[in-house]
Amino acid sequence: MAFGWIDEQAELRRRAGLVRTLRPRPAGTPLLDLASNDYLSLARHPEVTEGAARAARTWGGGATGSRLVTGTTELHAELERELAGFCGFEAALVFSSGYAANLAAVTALAPHGSLIVSDAGNHASLIDGCRLARGTTQVVAHSDPDAVRKALGGHDGPAVAVSDTVFSVDGDAAPLAGLAEACREYGAGLVLDDAHGLGVLGDGGRGAPHAAGVAGAGDVVVTVTLSKSLGSQGGAVLGPARVIEHLVNAARTFIFDTGLAPAAAGAALAALRLLRREPARAARAGAVARELYGRLTAAGLEAVRPDAAVVSVRAPSPEQAVRWAADCRAAGLSVGCFRPPSVPDGISRLRLTARADLSGAEIERAVRVIGETRP
Amino acid sequence: MAFGWIDEQAELRRRAGLVRTLRPRPAGTPLLDLASNDYLSLARHPEVTEGAARAARTWGGGATGSRLVTGTTELHAELERELAGFCGFEAALVFSSGYAANLAAVTALAPHGSLIVSDAGNHASLIDGCRLARGTTQVVAHSDPDAVRKALGGHDGPAVAVSDTVFSVDGDAAPLAGLAEACREYGAGLVLDDAHGLGVLGDGGRGAPHAAGVAGAGDVVVTVTLSKSLGSQGGAVLGPARVIEHLVNAARTFIFDTGLAPAAAGAALAALRLLRREPARAARAGAVARELYGRLTAAGLEAVRPDAAVVSVRAPSPEQAVRWAADCRAAGLSVGCFRPPSVPDGISRLRLTARADLSGAEIERAVRVIGETRP
Repeated sequence: MAFGWIDEQAELRRRAGLVRTLRPRPAGTPLLDLASNDYLSLARHPEVTEGAARAARTWGGGATGSRLVTGTTELHAELERELAGFCGFEAALVFSSGYAANLAAVTALAPHGSLIVSDAGNHASLIDGCRLARGTTQVVAHSDPDAVRKALGGHDGPAVAVSDTVFSVDGDAAPLAGLAEACREYGAGLVLDDAHGLGVLGDGGRGAPHAAGVAGAGDVVVTVTLSKSLGSQGGAVLGPARVIEHLVNAARTFIFDTGLAPAAAGAALAALRLLRREPARAARAGAVARELYGRLTAAGLEAVRPDAAVVSVRAPSPEQAVRWAADCRAAGLSVGCFRPPSVPDGISRLRLTARADLSGAEIERAVRVIGETRP
Repeated sequence: MAFGWIDEQAELRRRAGLVRTLRPRPAGTPLLDLASNDYLSLARHPEVTEGAARAARTWGGGATGSRLVTGTTELHAELERELAGFCGFEAALVFSSGYAANLAAVTALAPHGSLIVSDAGNHASLIDGCRLARGTTQVVAHSDPDAVRKALGGHDGPAVAVSDTVFSVDGDAAPLAGLAEACREYGAGLVLDDAHGLGVLGDGGRGAPHAAGVAGAGDVVVTVTLSKSLGSQGGAVLGPARVIEHLVNAARTFIFDTGLAPAAAGAALAALRLLRREPARAARAGAVARELYGRLTAAGLEAVRPDAAVVSVRAPSPEQAVRWAADCRAAGLSVGCFRPPSVPDGISRLRLTARADLSGAEIERAVRVIGETRP
């Protein structure tokens, strides 16, 4: 029977404690949120939701077609200009998701015969980009510019190194200056996913590449998401104008996808303007993460020192991670629970996200609940 | 220098007349639209744009996380229930784009050792799904159940056949009953992309699988888009509940992507409810397409008989297709222009889309302009 093998896989997942189920949330919840990627607390900000509402009314519920047919509006162009300017790049191209932006950047910049050097801790969307690309992928040790250097040295022809700037599971930052230097030695391009850096790192939240002094370089291409710090949906690729023009012509997830909905573009644009006006939000998200980390380790929990707004806490097993997260929830605290296959090293953890508007009392309460419910 | 090869490719594209550029459109335009995929004219409908605005205000500018963490709201669940019910399936799962839904369905249903039988005319997103999947892909002749049969007969193990229901370039329909029969003979699953069927074909727009009597079958999985007939953004997979549960656990573009923005879910839900209340919109889109086709062929133009709402008109070359579309635009008519590499057969064409609210006078005007500007 068709799909019969699905039931066997489901049974294996059940036995391993790895079943995932959807838990629809209501609009208003008393839970303290340390699980979302809404780092700057902008998703519910009235300026952002009004930005979405106004854009839907002005431009319609959808973009109505590929960006190359009817799907590019002046609103998309405005968002692209402001985003590129803010992050310090020549040009930007907006996609319907960060996932699509990553598939686009990697596939379009790694043609047949090229080498992709990919960090072992990269996000699933970068990995899928490598698998879809016509170039050959070599996975290298995590956050290791010398490993990148060695891989590039063994290849003749176009090459790119690909890395998250802040790794989504443990929240650790990549050595961007070192990676850029390694790439330059070999004339290779550098593709960075700043999903967890934009809005948190860099001057006023301009992102990790800006902080590392590599934004705007001719050999650096950055992807960002509009769905985390900017509280909306979508993604973008930032880079030299000629790279962006190349993507318009060559990136399949750009050419064959419907353009980002106007409401999402409007929300992201409103959030970006709010961040420019209130740059302290960015630093605050990082400070909350560091305070959270300090209190967690003081309470004897095994956490990873945060480089941005993600704080990872180790759990003994997938089952215990699930129970721990459930116990937190029962005590009024929403935390992320990352298990295989969503973790590169097979280690389950609670994943906490700092938000700019968490108060000292809320941080204290979160740490108390996590400590009291530990397995 | 990094990305140096990009300039060579740009030069080749320029010489071949294949350069693509973005043309941002204003919110209001006097152009007659025969280019968008807004088949039911719902993208600008006040109920749809209000659906988006209300959802943004109630739920926020973004979903704030993966559907498995904080990104599933009761609004997503409501949309999934109503969409599955309308199209005649047990369950549905909403994605941030139709592209992501196709990547999910194909990759999650074609594990290592399985066979994917893929129609030669399939959309880029299905092709990318095949390339990402761990199974082996065999491309078969366009719309040919016997070719599918032959491919399935040569394989031992799980298998799926994958096809668009309405092919996006020429607007022709796949032989769904024949494909379902071929799959059943071999115990294979059938994955159908109804992007251009939902809202246009089937009773009240329930889609091509519903019209063919294969909706809701245990071995049939259908993907749809929320960005065409439903005037929003996003996609969905429809199928048996156990297949949907499998996708929740196994589909990387579900697990590792931020959930669809509430505004897009709200717009799609409003459009779906409107379509249920006004089922005649669906038949009207098809009737407009057939009238358009009849008048075009009467005027001596080479068009493909439409099975849904897409009408394809052959152009002699890419350059002439571009000029033709530009001349139409100068005369107040917006049409799609499909050229390599966006066409599977290398033939350039104007791509016209029928909309439910096009008047007889507008159809007449469109055909007159297309005829007068022909190369």
